[in-house]
Amino acid sequence: MRVSVIGLGRMGANICRRLMRGGHEVVGFDRNQDAVRPLVDEGVIGAASLEDAAAQLPSPRIFWVMLPAGAPTEDTIAALSAIAQPGDVVIDGGNTFYKDDIRRFRECRERGVHYVDVGTSGGVWGLERGYCMMIGGDSDVIRMLDPIFATLAPGLGTLSRTPGREARDDRAERGYIHAGPAGSGHFVKMVHNGIEYGLMQAYAEGFDILKGRASDKLPDDERFTLDLPDIAEVWRRGSVIASWLLDLCAYELAGDNELARFSGRVADSGEGQWTIDAAMEEAVPVNVLSAALFARYRSRSDERFADQLLSAMRFGFGGHVEMPQ
Amino acid sequence: MRVSVIGLGRMGANICRRLMRGGHEVVGFDRNQDAVRPLVDEGVIGAASLEDAAAQLPSPRIFWVMLPAGAPTEDTIAALSAIAQPGDVVIDGGNTFYKDDIRRFRECRERGVHYVDVGTSGGVWGLERGYCMMIGGDSDVIRMLDPIFATLAPGLGTLSRTPGREARDDRAERGYIHAGPAGSGHFVKMVHNGIEYGLMQAYAEGFDILKGRASDKLPDDERFTLDLPDIAEVWRRGSVIASWLLDLCAYELAGDNELARFSGRVADSGEGQWTIDAAMEEAVPVNVLSAALFARYRSRSDERFADQLLSAMRFGFGGHVEMPQ
Amino acid sequence: MRVSVIGLGRMGANICRRLMRGGHEVVGFDRNQDAVRPLVDEGVIGAASLEDAAAQLPSPRIFWVMLPAGAPTEDTIAALSAIAQPGDVVIDGGNTFYKDDIRRFRECRERGVHYVDVGTSGGVWGLERGYCMMIGGDSDVIRMLDPIFATLAPGLGTLSRTPGREARDDRAERGYIHAGPAGSGHFVKMVHNGIEYGLMQAYAEGFDILKGRASDKLPDDERFTLDLPDIAEVWRRGSVIASWLLDLCAYELAGDNELARFSGRVADSGEGQWTIDAAMEEAVPVNVLSAALFARYRSRSDERFADQLLSAMRFGFGGHVEMPQ
Amino acid sequence: MRVSVIGLGRMGANICRRLMRGGHEVVGFDRNQDAVRPLVDEGVIGAASLEDAAAQLPSPRIFWVMLPAGAPTEDTIAALSAIAQPGDVVIDGGNTFYKDDIRRFRECRERGVHYVDVGTSGGVWGLERGYCMMIGGDSDVIRMLDPIFATLAPGLGTLSRTPGREARDDRAERGYIHAGPAGSGHFVKMVHNGIEYGLMQAYAEGFDILKGRASDKLPDDERFTLDLPDIAEVWRRGSVIASWLLDLCAYELAGDNELARFSGRVADSGEGQWTIDAAMEEAVPVNVLSAALFARYRSRSDERFADQLLSAMRFGFGGHVEMPQ
Repeated sequence: MRVSVIGLGRMGANICRRLMRGGHEVVGFDRNQDAVRPLVDEGVIGAASLEDAAAQLPSPRIFWVMLPAGAPTEDTIAALSAIAQPGDVVIDGGNTFYKDDIRRFRECRERGVHYVDVGTSGGVWGLERGYCMMIGGDSDVIRMLDPIFATLAPGLGTLSRTPGREARDDRAERGYIHAGPAGSGHFVKMVHNGIEYGLMQAYAEGFDILKGRASDKLPDDERFTLDLPDIAEVWRRGSVIASWLLDLCAYELAGDNELARFSGRVADSGEGQWTIDAAMEEAVPVNVLSAALFARYRSRSDERFADQLLSAMRFGFGGHVEMPQ
Repeated sequence: MRVSVIGLGRMGANICRRLMRGGHEVVGFDRNQDAVRPLVDEGVIGAASLEDAAAQLPSPRIFWVMLPAGAPTEDTIAALSAIAQPGDVVIDGGNTFYKDDIRRFRECRERGVHYVDVGTSGGVWGLERGYCMMIGGDSDVIRMLDPIFATLAPGLGTLSRTPGREARDDRAERGYIHAGPAGSGHFVKMVHNGIEYGLMQAYAEGFDILKGRASDKLPDDERFTLDLPDIAEVWRRGSVIASWLLDLCAYELAGDNELARFSGRVADSGEGQWTIDAAMEEAVPVNVLSAALFARYRSRSDERFADQLLSAMRFGFGGHVEMPQ
Repeated sequence: MRVSVIGLGRMGANICRRLMRGGHEVVGFDRNQDAVRPLVDEGVIGAASLEDAAAQLPSPRIFWVMLPAGAPTEDTIAALSAIAQPGDVVIDGGNTFYKDDIRRFRECRERGVHYVDVGTSGGVWGLERGYCMMIGGDSDVIRMLDPIFATLAPGLGTLSRTPGREARDDRAERGYIHAGPAGSGHFVKMVHNGIEYGLMQAYAEGFDILKGRASDKLPDDERFTLDLPDIAEVWRRGSVIASWLLDLCAYELAGDNELARFSGRVADSGEGQWTIDAAMEEAVPVNVLSAALFARYRSRSDERFADQLLSAMRFGFGGHVEMPQ
Repeated sequence: MRVSVIGLGRMGANICRRLMRGGHEVVGFDRNQDAVRPLVDEGVIGAASLEDAAAQLPSPRIFWVMLPAGAPTEDTIAALSAIAQPGDVVIDGGNTFYKDDIRRFRECRERGVHYVDVGTSGGVWGLERGYCMMIGGDSDVIRMLDPIFATLAPGLGTLSRTPGREARDDRAERGYIHAGPAGSGHFVKMVHNGIEYGLMQAYAEGFDILKGRASDKLPDDERFTLDLPDIAEVWRRGSVIASWLLDLCAYELAGDNELARFSGRVADSGEGQWTIDAAMEEAVPVNVLSAALFARYRSRSDERFADQLLSAMRFGFGGHVEMPQ
């Protein structure tokens, strides 16, 4: 198929490449034309503007938008929905909030334009290994786009297969799913990221305990100076908590067991917060996912007013305020 | 009655005074004789040693130990249990771990000595207002000691009475209870402190949100610069969250709405941790009480290895480690 | 002053009464005219419709809306803002989400109408004791309304005063504050309720531990059958955790120490969730407030899919799935 | 080497088998002789008693104890330490609390006997794939036992290697480590299990949110009926949260997307609790690990007194108890 990719950052550029390797033709556009040129050398059909991209596409035109969430995506999709003809397809492959997808889907539909949201995981490995994709939108549109998704996804590979899936939709095994209606693709990706925060924090707390065991406040025979790189490595090998995130821990600890080059100020990108919001809308208790998010907030604070107030109350115990009778 | 008080720090000294005001005779001992002398001026019968204190008491001799938990209390009670005669009573009024009480009770019983644990709340206001006491041990011994407890306790006072308590043990209304067997006094006091941590953290988080509302990252019309001293004050007056701890907040905030003189490094004294331990022994979920304790741990850390590991994993996303297939 | 009260449920009716006791004239309206009649007997000027209420008010007309949050309040305020003349004042005394206040303030302002949000605490005791009020809106409007707030508020009373407040706005001591611009009144009330959830859960967990201490899984000498009514009572008297919420615990436990008539399915009214949202907007860690909210969610679930999935994973340990190498 | 395995349950039996496959001779004992016989058919040298096992071993005699933690292990090790000669080695391969290891190590040392603790992960797959082992004790003893550990461990296998480990102890890559002194093996295994609880709960909460999205309380266009088996499957393929635990989820969900055959009553085996204890000894905040543990406690409760007390307080709001002024 011939499709356009709007936004040629690292992620968008790699999507172009993987599409071309799969035999597709790609029209590429980026507001920064310096990002377009090297891809043209690799075979991408360069576009000078959104209109130019549209002009180089057959009908129905397919726009894969791969931009930072928020204003860049919002503005581009607004512009595209003005350019698009009935039957055209706008795909948001970024990290959009799912309620924005629902609204945009409705707005596009009013103009006869199809809107598809794709939660994309895989990062820099996606080019080689493929992207894990969670897709929201209308079934017939998503079926029509299948050659694109099939190319971008990892495919079956050599991973051991899950028994009992013989009768099920095989797209999941090939690394992509049609999650449901508009917004559901980004919704599932959002929860994925919420889980990711929880997993990361579980490892982080565990290693923090291991490291803290060297504290000289502990009795001599209960104090252990543990080799964290070796522990991360051995856990990768046959233990129940083996995972790709643990592989990351093992890699980084092998390089520097003190992790001295990392500050402990940890950003969050929005999905963690949205996940908690979604849980509250459903009245689902999520103590682990919220604690993981709050740990990141706390990590970015040098001190907190909350703690100062605790100190103030403790000081107040000293007798400044008359006790209740 | 004539009783001894062992340990004449601020708390012990005030207990002597309140006992004397109630008509009791007090033999006072402290390893630091400088702490004894001023109390002798106030009417305390000074003792030069534990043996001397014992010698000045009628039988059965009553020893109220008011020392820091841990070694000071442990060593003194060991010494007393050697000095004590069958029928004598050793009272631990400090903040002892309840399992230590259970062991000591057993050890004392083997020598015919009575052991009573008293969880004491009230701080510096106790002298004027009385001490709230939770008592563990044998019923007949605690009944025998009743004149002491009745004197130390606040008494009925003017607090509105709880309806429906007419047929109940009126000691609770007068500010002390016989909680149960050995250790139960300190157990109840321990849970009291666990709750206290939770309450304090609830206020702390709430005020932190109020303060954070001035953040310039918020939209203009959702940004409020709130007057925290006024808010604490108004909540004292007719609101559902009125409490003595809130009175403390109001007091401290009135003096300095930035709480600038308080570092946010908050100590914990052991009871919070023991409360979590007790909950885990009973399989009781205590997310609030544990979160309150952990907030204090976190407040004392400049940075945590946990957070550095999160940063390291996030860095690792960048492609150093091969993705799972 | 002559003001109208729109919504004559228990809360609205008591506000009418307290206003009249303070010498104000009250025009009362309720969609349910059966709610109006008894108040007319007490001196309220009955109104048959919002328009009728408006007609009986001097200019500028003051509408105190006291309705359930959500559609009832929203619809009524929309209707009032159509009826109101420039200079009139619409007050929302309910439990509205503060962002709705901000929007309504803007909408009213376009018509020259003043909008004031009042977070009101005090419940059924408010009639006698007065209402604790947190007020958002324009200063001059709130100053104009001061006679109403002064009447409704508790006043100084006999509560011990907070030292250091001599130079401060004395409205807080009399039980009401002007918190800030539109929305800030309900914002402060929202955080108040968030804190309330945290406080309640701290007590709940503590008493749960006390109750669980009778478990026959514990060693004999560490098992205590504690008298919870007595413990709640004694903690009211001189302890650090004394509060009105503890008074409630003591009262309910005195009536039934098993609390057998209470199911453990606990509702939440929105403010808890909004408080967490506000905290996340500010990146404030709130592990206690969120845990308190989630405990309520969990209390309303007979079983959770989360727990079933844990069981499923544990079952899977048994060897159905090939281990990682 | 010739070693004995004490305890021939599923785990112990498989350890015998893997040792024999690796060329070792195994003397097997179980109090239940029915467990011994089938293994004798496979080549194990049967023993009728601990003494008999000892008699069939060369010096220094090696006893690998593979029994349930607690009394079975404790009693057997006490018996062995009486039978053992100076220089003999007692290995505890079970799930012992690390402080018990520290004590036993000391007790054994007094008799000249070596004690080694081995935290063993791998479950039923261990026979084929090998066991991931974390070992505590004296270096020379552990070096002497190396042929056993090397046989039991997975070995290098085909897992991609962690860069930067070239100069490090290669035992970690082969699936076992000498963690440190006595107790450290089980300590590291304990933290491993604590992390496991956290990881499992993160997935559980995430899938609970996904499932809850079908709630009919949500707006129509924000309600999604998601296919959880497909989501688990697609996340295994190229996503950041791929792990063996997720493989388990995918497997169990593929069999039954409602997990109807699983009750949500989730056991915990002690390590989770010990992990929290260890964290508290070190003052490490562990909100995720504790929340994961508490979720299991809660899952086993039909109702909780905590929740009833919340309801009681909420009822009390209604005016039974006089408000604070």
